[in-house]
This record gives sequence, structure tokens and C-alpha cells, in this order.
Amino acid sequence: MTHDHGRTTEHGGDLDRAITRFGGQRADWLDLSTGINPHAYPLPPIDNSLWRDLPDRGLQQDVEAAAAAAYHTTRPCLALAGAQQAIQLYPALFAKYITGRRARLLHPSYNEHERQLLRQNWQVERVCSTDQLAGADLAVVVNPNNPDGCHSRPEQLFSLAEQVGVLVIDESFCDPLPHLSVCPHLTAQHDNILVLRSFGKFYGLAGLRLGFAVGAQSHLDDLSEMMGSWAVSGPALAVGRAALTDRIWTTQMTTQLATETDQLDQLATAAGWQIVGGTSLYRLYQMSDATAWQDHLARHQIWVRAFSYNANWLRLGLPPQTGWARLEQALRG
Amino acid sequence: MTHDHGRTTEHGGDLDRAITRFGGQRADWLDLSTGINPHAYPLPPIDNSLWRDLPDRGLQQDVEAAAAAAYHTTRPCLALAGAQQAIQLYPALFAKYITGRRARLLHPSYNEHERQLLRQNWQVERVCSTDQLAGADLAVVVNPNNPDGCHSRPEQLFSLAEQVGVLVIDESFCDPLPHLSVCPHLTAQHDNILVLRSFGKFYGLAGLRLGFAVGAQSHLDDLSEMMGSWAVSGPALAVGRAALTDRIWTTQMTTQLATETDQLDQLATAAGWQIVGGTSLYRLYQMSDATAWQDHLARHQIWVRAFSYNANWLRLGLPPQTGWARLEQALRG
Repeated sequence: MTHDHGRTTEHGGDLDRAITRFGGQRADWLDLSTGINPHAYPLPPIDNSLWRDLPDRGLQQDVEAAAAAAYHTTRPCLALAGAQQAIQLYPALFAKYITGRRARLLHPSYNEHERQLLRQNWQVERVCSTDQLAGADLAVVVNPNNPDGCHSRPEQLFSLAEQVGVLVIDESFCDPLPHLSVCPHLTAQHDNILVLRSFGKFYGLAGLRLGFAVGAQSHLDDLSEMMGSWAVSGPALAVGRAALTDRIWTTQMTTQLATETDQLDQLATAAGWQIVGGTSLYRLYQMSDATAWQDHLARHQIWVRAFSYNANWLRLGLPPQTGWARLEQALRG
Repeated sequence: MTHDHGRTTEHGGDLDRAITRFGGQRADWLDLSTGINPHAYPLPPIDNSLWRDLPDRGLQQDVEAAAAAAYHTTRPCLALAGAQQAIQLYPALFAKYITGRRARLLHPSYNEHERQLLRQNWQVERVCSTDQLAGADLAVVVNPNNPDGCHSRPEQLFSLAEQVGVLVIDESFCDPLPHLSVCPHLTAQHDNILVLRSFGKFYGLAGLRLGFAVGAQSHLDDLSEMMGSWAVSGPALAVGRAALTDRIWTTQMTTQLATETDQLDQLATAAGWQIVGGTSLYRLYQMSDATAWQDHLARHQIWVRAFSYNANWLRLGLPPQTGWARLEQALRG
């Protein structure tokens, strides 16, 4: 029962590792290692039938329509059990449509894209700028990028799409920055673009596993076949439908997150850190010894994200209301 | 938004189709088209953190340990988002381990095995008896079988395993018939057997999407890689852990389901139907015109499962307590 679940790649959300090393109970820790909104969308009542019955096809169509409206797109949306599920599947999907196997992606970025492409026999080349993605059989852009918040404008991405076989745009952190999304501008002509959207990050409900793919109908049909029936749980579909149709909460939360990331930047600057960038859901900071800072915060039972490839970076998600004073104190001493 | 989700295969749980044809609201219908226990395991309190945080690795290990104990096995278990997820993945998994592509499976049986094997480029041969599976590169046995309840004893299956490349045993309906399960007898030597277990059917919680694979560590590691991180939702893991460790409920429910299927058989016999077989979660009946009976029951807003390949069969799941009188009345007139 002690298998590894294939999680050798470093991730946020690895609080177990912190607990093993520094002790304490989960409830004692302030986990800032992810980019998940600490202000979760309030759960609506969940009818018993959602737990009992196989997930309903009509409900799935409802949540897909709600996603399309929330993302301001007229293109088809497919519900998935998290954006991660699409990352597992698209390497095989596009291997069917494209003869070449040369993928290019930006580095640094969310490492699961590279991992799944390599696992599924794509050749992967890391590049440093979006321009250098041109010419690839498959290109991946995380927009805005995780962890540094670098971003491209939609027109840049549409131009790039004309220069690659397939373009995967991971918009997992795009909800509070909707002007960056290609979704409102997508037409049937953009049939070599697949957009991935996360539900759990912005709505603060990562445990329920919901995400979406937006793109060509044929690609979504294939993804649906690969996932199989009933891939998303009934409760996730119902909660997703409620949240994605709640425009008041979305608008208010977008403002609140922007305010709070400013507040986080002020604490970080006061600690002598430099701001590299980020989004309204996480911030990336530079300092002379990130590992020492990670350990220092861990001794205060605050867990943040370090990067094996950059010893000067830490990424912090936003704390819940109850966590600000504790973070401020830990950063001071 | 109106794509088909790849559900061209006929299934139970297709109440939408019945509603389209016969009208009414979902809540008006008595859906007996599936083999899901109508007496759902009572939901334990679900902590907010289960919705908010990425599913916890420690919790996943807990539910896998609980599954191993419930299935009386010392072999590793892997949690999946429903047994269906394993059916999507094992054709590609075993394509890696086996050079041949000749799969054999019993017919009639749960049709998703054939469908996913064909989709993933296996040659599929349907056979009529378990003996005829011998010699296959990959053989599938649903034990007990859906829809007819035919079953093999564990020693027959171990003998069969020695005569095939890989043996997949789908024990989705084995919970109330534990003497049929190979799980208690599995050892490390049975490394060409993969067992699939469903959680939602026996525990009456099909909407939460949970299932397990039991078998060789290397196969489970590969499945885990294919599913990716966080494949099962936090609430599903927590509910699963509570249910799988509740032996009192399991024992009581096993008795109750056996009593209720006897009661269903009596109603069916009184209607002039013949009992073909089944399990404690569904019964298969034979009659001269199954389609007319399906329509008759549908006009009473009771939906049962018909089979395109056999015009004389209907399969019925158990009704909830409130449904017995209605079913009895509909069967009488």
C-alpha cells in the first residue's frame, strides 16, 4: 500500500513532506505551497441524488454551458476531473492527429506538461521565449505562467498558433485575469488550439476535481472517449454549475485577490525579498537563500514552494484571513 | 455543448433517454436500470478541507488500506475514480507488457470492456464459456457476470490465469458475494491478474466516483502514472474510508440485499417472467416480449434495462423502500 503514486515530480500541495520533516499535525500548518484561493466558494446544498446516482448527462451539459458563459466563449467546453486530467490525455490525443513528435515548451513552467509529454514518447525541447516555440509540432504555453506570472496577449498566441502544429494553452490561473484569455476570441478556425481551464484554483475547491477543455469538437470528443463515462463526480458537477454562474462572487473575488496579493508583496518586500512576478493567486519572490527561508518558515509551520532549479526563488500562495498575522510575524523573525 | 461524450454504448443509468421518450421529471421516475444499491451508505460529515485542498496522499493511502482490509487481501490496492477508470486504462497498460493483441471475453457481459479494448487496437473475440478464454493474450471475466450473474470460483480463475497472458477480473458486483472474490487468495505469484472493484454500486454512492484496482505493484504504479496526481476527489476518499471500514453496515446490508432480491424475484415470477440469474444488486429476467414490458413499465415511469442483443431479457435493480408498491402495481397491470 506504500506505492509512490508516480509523484516524483515536485509540486506544491506536498504538505505531507513538510510534516514528515518538521513535525506537527496538518491542522497546525499554514500551507502556502499551492496557488489555490484560500477563500473557497461557499458550497451550495448538495442533493443526496448527486452522491447516489451515476453523474447525470444533463447536469454535465449544464456545467459545460456555465463554463462557456464564464469563460466568454462560443466554443465547445468539456468537463474533466481537473485540468490535470487533460494534461494526462492530450499527449496521446495529438499523437493521433500529428505525425511529428517534437514538442516545445517554456521553462520554467508547470512541470506536469513536460513530464506527461516525455512519458508519452514526445521529444521535448525547453525554450526561453514564446517566439522560440514557433516551428514545433506541439507547443505549450501556460498563460499566465506558473510560477513567474509571465504572460502573452491573445493576439500573440493566435499568431503563434499559425506557426505550430498544435498549441495547448493552459489557462489554469486565468480566471482573475480574463483579459489574457484566448477563450472569448476563439472561433471554429482555431482548430489547432486546445485551452485548459482549472476550476478548483480560483474557486478554492481543488479537492472536488473539476476542470475544462475548450477547443475543437473533434478534440473534445476524443478526450471524452479517453476519459470514459462518468469521469466527473456528481457533486463536482453541481458545485461547478453553481459557482460558474455566480458572477457577483467572481467579480468581488477578483478585486479581493488583487488587493491581497498587493498586501503579500508588501510583506515580502519588507522581508527584503524581490518581486519576480505572479498572478492574483500566487507570487514569486527572489532572495539570496530560498532554502534557508523555506526552512525558517517551516519552523513556524508555514509551508511555501521552493524550486530545485532555482535556489533563489520561493512561491507563496495567499493565506486565509487567520494566517496573515502569523505570516507577518514569521517573516520578521 | 451538445457533444455525445462518447456514450454510444448502451448502459443502464440512461434515464435521460427515457425522459426524452416518455416525459416527466427525473424525480418522477423510479430508475431500476442500474445495479446500484438503493440504500446508500449514510454520508459521514465531510470536512471543508476535503473540498478545498488538493486530495491528500495520506488519505489516499488510508482508503487503499481500508479497501485491502474490506476485500480481505494482502496485495496492493490503488484508488481510482470508479472502476470505469481502470477499464479505460488497462488496454494501454497491458499493451506495454504483452506483445500479442488477441483479447477474449465472455458474451454477454458488461460491454465497456470490449468497447475500450477495441478502441485501443486489441483484437477481441467473444466466447461463450470461461474455458474458451484459455490461450488469449488478455482475458476478461466479470465475476459475478453482469447481466446474468454467472460466476466462476476463485480456483477456476487461478487455473485460467495460468493459461492466458493477463487475466482481468472485474469484481464490480462481488461485495455482497465475497466467497466469489479472488482477492483473499491473491499472492505475489499471481502477477498476471488485475482485479477491478467498484465502490459505488454496493455502497449506493455511484455519483462520487471511487473504485480500486488490486494486483501487481508494477501494474498499479503504471495505472497511477496514467491517471496522474489527484485523480480521486477528496470527498470520495473520505467517504470511501468511512464506508469500507464499517463492517457492521456491510454485513447487515449483504443480508438485506439478499432478502430484497428474493422479493423482486417473487414479483417477477408473479408477472410471468422467468428468472435467468443475477446478483444481490440486480436480477435478469426472461419474457416473451421484453420491449413491450419495458415500454409498459416506462408508461408507469419505471425505467428498466433492455438489451439490444436479446429481445427477451430485462434487468432490474432493486427499488428503494418507497418504490416496491409502485413496481408491484405496474407489474400487475
